Amino acid sequence: MATKPFAIIAGVGPGTGASIARKFAQAYSVVVLARNAANYKPLVQEINSSGGQALGISSDLSDSESVKSAFKQISQHHASSPLAAAVFNVGGGFVKKPFLELTEEEFTLGYRSQGQGGFNFAQTSLPLLLQAKGSLPHPPTLIFTGATASVKGSATFATFATGKFALRALAQSLAREFGPQGVHVSHVIIDGVIDTPRTKAWANEHEDGKLDPDAIADAYWHLHTQPRTTFGFELDLRPYVEKW
Amino acid sequence: MATKPFAIIAGVGPGTGASIARKFAQAYSVVVLARNAANYKPLVQEINSSGGQALGISSDLSDSESVKSAFKQISQHHASSPLAAAVFNVGGGFVKKPFLELTEEEFTLGYRSQGQGGFNFAQTSLPLLLQAKGSLPHPPTLIFTGATASVKGSATFATFATGKFALRALAQSLAREFGPQGVHVSHVIIDGVIDTPRTKAWANEHEDGKLDPDAIADAYWHLHTQPRTTFGFELDLRPYVEKW
Amino acid sequence: MATKPFAIIAGVGPGTGASIARKFAQAYSVVVLARNAANYKPLVQEINSSGGQALGISSDLSDSESVKSAFKQISQHHASSPLAAAVFNVGGGFVKKPFLELTEEEFTLGYRSQGQGGFNFAQTSLPLLLQAKGSLPHPPTLIFTGATASVKGSATFATFATGKFALRALAQSLAREFGPQGVHVSHVIIDGVIDTPRTKAWANEHEDGKLDPDAIADAYWHLHTQPRTTFGFELDLRPYVEKW
Amino acid sequence: MATKPFAIIAGVGPGTGASIARKFAQAYSVVVLARNAANYKPLVQEINSSGGQALGISSDLSDSESVKSAFKQISQHHASSPLAAAVFNVGGGFVKKPFLELTEEEFTLGYRSQGQGGFNFAQTSLPLLLQAKGSLPHPPTLIFTGATASVKGSATFATFATGKFALRALAQSLAREFGPQGVHVSHVIIDGVIDTPRTKAWANEHEDGKLDPDAIADAYWHLHTQPRTTFGFELDLRPYVEKW
Repeated sequence: MATKPFAIIAGVGPGTGASIARKFAQAYSVVVLARNAANYKPLVQEINSSGGQALGISSDLSDSESVKSAFKQISQHHASSPLAAAVFNVGGGFVKKPFLELTEEEFTLGYRSQGQGGFNFAQTSLPLLLQAKGSLPHPPTLIFTGATASVKGSATFATFATGKFALRALAQSLAREFGPQGVHVSHVIIDGVIDTPRTKAWANEHEDGKLDPDAIADAYWHLHTQPRTTFGFELDLRPYVEKW
Repeated sequence: MATKPFAIIAGVGPGTGASIARKFAQAYSVVVLARNAANYKPLVQEINSSGGQALGISSDLSDSESVKSAFKQISQHHASSPLAAAVFNVGGGFVKKPFLELTEEEFTLGYRSQGQGGFNFAQTSLPLLLQAKGSLPHPPTLIFTGATASVKGSATFATFATGKFALRALAQSLAREFGPQGVHVSHVIIDGVIDTPRTKAWANEHEDGKLDPDAIADAYWHLHTQPRTTFGFELDLRPYVEKW
Repeated sequence: MATKPFAIIAGVGPGTGASIARKFAQAYSVVVLARNAANYKPLVQEINSSGGQALGISSDLSDSESVKSAFKQISQHHASSPLAAAVFNVGGGFVKKPFLELTEEEFTLGYRSQGQGGFNFAQTSLPLLLQAKGSLPHPPTLIFTGATASVKGSATFATFATGKFALRALAQSLAREFGPQGVHVSHVIIDGVIDTPRTKAWANEHEDGKLDPDAIADAYWHLHTQPRTTFGFELDLRPYVEKW
Repeated sequence: MATKPFAIIAGVGPGTGASIARKFAQAYSVVVLARNAANYKPLVQEINSSGGQALGISSDLSDSESVKSAFKQISQHHASSPLAAAVFNVGGGFVKKPFLELTEEEFTLGYRSQGQGGFNFAQTSLPLLLQAKGSLPHPPTLIFTGATASVKGSATFATFATGKFALRALAQSLAREFGPQGVHVSHVIIDGVIDTPRTKAWANEHEDGKLDPDAIADAYWHLHTQPRTTFGFELDLRPYVEKW
């Protein structure tokens, strides 16, 4: 049981989520969520062994029961701590396929992971963020990770785009409802390939042609530190050589 | 069994859907879909008794089995006819509520009716539209009905906005995939209150302050008649006094 | 001196402007404006010799004195006729060049032709459109022609994009100010190459890969015929094979 | 003559421009530009007397000769220093008036201050930014200040909106042309009233209901520090209670 403020980062693997967790762990205790424990274990160990505080919980954000169970654990662990920030960085739903070959189940993956997952995460974290108001150095913050597909429905990307468009609608609606209540809601559009272990091998004709997860994390942190006079809602990030 | 081209209008009640059906029935045989037969029966009778051809089928577009069953009936009835146009004008998912009071089921209504419904309708109608190519006076057309919530996520509108954003993503993706294959995909944003029997009583400070369903139908017909050299994708319609 | 309603089409050459003039000449007397008489003379002759009524006036829309002089001629010619529609279809300002090589004069061409030209045209035609209200079958209409560059500032397109963005801002502002006064203001985004004598030779890998000016004119006419309950503001038109 | 990197902030009064100058002066020598020396003199004195380095130059950005003359002074003063950042924060062109009452001169003010001013500033600063590449801790940066009117043309705001739309077009075009050359171009949308001495008296029903210039400056600095892997292009900032 700690009274240090904490942050929840949902969707942690070796890429953006881990960088965001590391960044926020410099100021807060962090809780990291991922479907598979293998995705957060090395990170939790790394943070805890380097002076930070991290707790990993396995959770499927698209399943409301799983989310409730995770937040029950979180409440027990952080019973008396304020929630400073909640970041929804969940992947999934990325299916690239000719539309007529999509099964109903495949198509629904986009919405389940992004829309449904975003709903579950927001509904459980917002009461904690509202409660934390006033006891923190920065306004409590809820950040959603978007993508190129948040603003453009490309051919054969119907699954992912419906999910990401839905998530952006959710973020806008929450920003307009909870901003006036003092919670900072943001949506970051990641436009390009992120430099992760998985994409290392991907050919890129340009040096520095992939997004740096640590630089993405810096942007999330900057948004979090904004005062309520000056809330940023949407920021698009891309490599200098990206076509857009 | 007829060889006259036909159009399918999904989401038919006493408002926009009925006007679209009447308009397209001037040139084509029409199939109208609604969850409840009571919603299409008077219209089917009206069209058939005034020299047109209409068939009504009860179908829940958010249920893929129900859609398949409806299209089986359609195929039997129009076995040798080309599908000239398919219009997705399905309502549902309109839930206005503080976000934290939404149940999971309520929130999902937006996506189920719009995203899932749009998927089911597009996947069953697109093969027929592709097949019809070349045998028609105008390129086969798939039109989706959007709303203000297609481009703006307002406070307490998370449910409807996630559904309508998702539908717009789907429409964009299909336009980019099937346009080059000769199918015209469009998305119409209805920004304002539509003048229907249900909204007649709603106060409106301005004369003519509600959208006329027949004028909306004229716009859909105009889009349908465009040649493939000049496909319109998105059109926003609103009353002259609407704030936007 | 005639009492038949008339339309003004500004920016008439052998392409879209001519098609719009021909279309509107089926219902109205038309006045066509172009910088060089050579651009409208064949069209005026064609319309007049085929039962229509057309008047051509040389005018540089970016020069307010020239516009005033043109509208003085128009008022004399159509003293007792209502102005049914005014279409701003003026080209110019298309300079594609590395930014650092642009002269100040070249850069300003975009704004001069589009922003300044649009202002001059709107300010002289709006009083006539307001005056015409009520005496016409359709609400008086002011339509602006946009382009891909109206919504995207591409590399080396700074000149044209600043002009077209400015014109879109003007169209939005006028729609919001004059819509409630009964004047229908629209903005049409032409996204692709238009099929004109000048572009005939341009290679295009696809059959029907260029926009048909007559189909564009049909869209303008459709917008014009919309009742005030159902004003369309923005429509994007492109060939079925266009990448977007 | 100094070798410390420097930043240029154009459009400096007691509000945002001054805050940006103070922020960048913590790391760089700064040059501040304003039409009237009275607008920058107290700021220059403040920075110089508190350990920073500031130079003020009177310049009318909409006048290319005036801009050239200012940059000549800048080159002499910073002959051997790299230009780290250039910020275009110029006001002007804010005319709110019924469209038909606007004079041609008034209407042009929007474009002159924003479009023309932005062009002059970008064309003189970009060669210096390109030259500075590689010798700086952060990629050289060019930031433009936008407003609500950058993305929405409201009624009676035609003048300001045409200017701000044009400036956004310019920013997009430059980001796409100079991003791949290593210069970071950004556009920040300020959506709301900024808390300045001038607006202090303006009633606001909400505490903290105006944007804090220092928080805006923090956002500009954050954008400047992003590596080329992760360039942010557009960020919208508004008070938590702002309607949007």
